Parts: sequence; structure tokens; C-alpha cells
Amino acid sequence: MHALLPPREEAARLLQEYLEHSIPLVPQMQIRVVELNDAHLVLGAPLAPNRNHIGTVFGGSLNGLATLSCWGLVWLLLHGRGAQIVIREGNMKFRRPATSEFTAHCPLPPPDVQRQFVEQFQRRGRAGLDLEAEVHCNGSRVAEFQGNFVAIRSAKAET
Amino acid sequence: MHALLPPREEAARLLQEYLEHSIPLVPQMQIRVVELNDAHLVLGAPLAPNRNHIGTVFGGSLNGLATLSCWGLVWLLLHGRGAQIVIREGNMKFRRPATSEFTAHCPLPPPDVQRQFVEQFQRRGRAGLDLEAEVHCNGSRVAEFQGNFVAIRSAKAET
Repeated sequence: MHALLPPREEAARLLQEYLEHSIPLVPQMQIRVVELNDAHLVLGAPLAPNRNHIGTVFGGSLNGLATLSCWGLVWLLLHGRGAQIVIREGNMKFRRPATSEFTAHCPLPPPDVQRQFVEQFQRRGRAGLDLEAEVHCNGSRVAEFQGNFVAIRSAKAET
Repeated sequence: MHALLPPREEAARLLQEYLEHSIPLVPQMQIRVVELNDAHLVLGAPLAPNRNHIGTVFGGSLNGLATLSCWGLVWLLLHGRGAQIVIREGNMKFRRPATSEFTAHCPLPPPDVQRQFVEQFQRRGRAGLDLEAEVHCNGSRVAEFQGNFVAIRSAKAET
């Protein structure tokens, strides 16, 4: 685990609790933190609450899970630093239908990119980060996401 | 109303029922068909079930509503023609936070574009359409969406 993130198990638990309590759609979609390690943050959700008109995963759910995997990574990087994190742009390509439980994998940026992002936030009170995520289902990549996130220092932030 | 669409009030009711019954997140997000006329299809949703960690609308909900406003328009154009409609690509720019009830407005394409799309679907059993939507809140544009949708003829389709 990179030193900038909280200890792995505690971080996963903190993120799970924060997502569940602050975004009502997270429990509705039954989203959970599946894995956090040196390589990536992985979120997952089952098909049933996220199905669409043809019994595969609703595109909005694929997008929502991918967005939250990236958002969650930024939240962890800035945890305890008083940041509000918002998405500015999100682009999604849907490759094939997801027919069962699905996961969104957001790779951690290289350590120097993480460090620059956190340092810029601490110095200027504002910093941006581009992240990518892949959505997998049954061992296949079903969708790709690219997003731009901005962190702003705020007294309102709960982190 | 363009002749390719079902009569206006019936179309809005059909779409509302179809969305509610086939996508569990639609009632969870409290999405409703607000308006369908010669200019656009408008869907709306309240803040409460769609709020995020800072009390504004979750980016995934903004994206979901915009996606469904475009998807709904394609569904109406092909209603009764045995089409399965899926999203291939969706790109979203978030301009400012949505702080209360929000609406997604998908303008109807020009009549000749609608006609070509339906004719191509009937001839080849497959057709694609690019659509745009804006998300509004309190009289301001808060986000813009562009999506590519594909319709495929299918025995499984319920339309």
C-alpha cells in the first residue's frame, strides 16, 4: 500500500461506510468495496438491483460503479484533508452486456502522480486528477471509463 | 408530434410504465416522464433519493437521467418494431452542482434523421443514432451528455 493511503483494511471499511451513509443509491445498488491493494481499488455490485429492460446491467449502473471506483480512490488519497471531491467529466465506452455480478477496477496512479496531486491540493486548496476504470463481468471487460475529478478544500467536507 | 412517434400522451404513459417496470433503479431514483412534445423528451427526478456526500445530486444520477432521456427517445421511435436498444458510448460534462429537483432534456433529431434511422432499422435490423441531452436544475444547465445508441432487431424485445 502506498504511504499516502490509510492502512488497507481500515481504508476499505472507511470507504464502504462513507459511501453507504452519504449516497442513498449505493445501498440500493448494493455496491460494496471488493478489494483495495497496491494495484487498484475494486468495487462490485450484483445484477438484480441493477438490471435493465433486457435483464443485463443498466448502463447507468455500469457508469455509476465506474465513477464511484475512481471517486473512491480520490477520497482515499485525500482522506482527513478536508476535501470535497467532484466529477467534472466522465466518458464511457460500453463493449458488451454485463449478464451477472460486475466489478469496476480503478488502477492507482503511479506514486509520483499521487504525491503531486496531494501536494498540489495541500498547497493550493484545489487539484485535479484524471483516472480510468474498467468494468468486468464473468472475466471479461465489458466497459471502460475515463474521468476527470477535482478536489476542493472545504469546511463542509466530512473527510 | 412527428408521425413516427405514438400519440403524445399515450407515448409518455407507455414510456413511464416501461421504465418503471423494467429497470428497478427507475422507481428508486423516482424518475418520471415530465414532457414529450415536438421539441424534446424531458425526464425528471427529485434530489432526495439521488443526493451525494455533499447534499447535491450524485454524478451517477445526473448521468443516469440523461442516458435514459436519450434511450427513451430511441425506444419511442422504434416502439412496436421489435428493437433492443443499447448504449455504446456516453460522454458527460458536469458544469455545476445540481442542488434540487433536476431534469434531462433530449431534443428530437430533425424529422429526416428520425426517418432515416427507423428506415435503416427496418431494412437492416440494426441502426445507430447519436443523441445529446442537457441536464437542468433551477433554470440553469448543470451538465451535458452525448451518447451513441444502437437498436438491434430481437425476438426478446418487449416493444
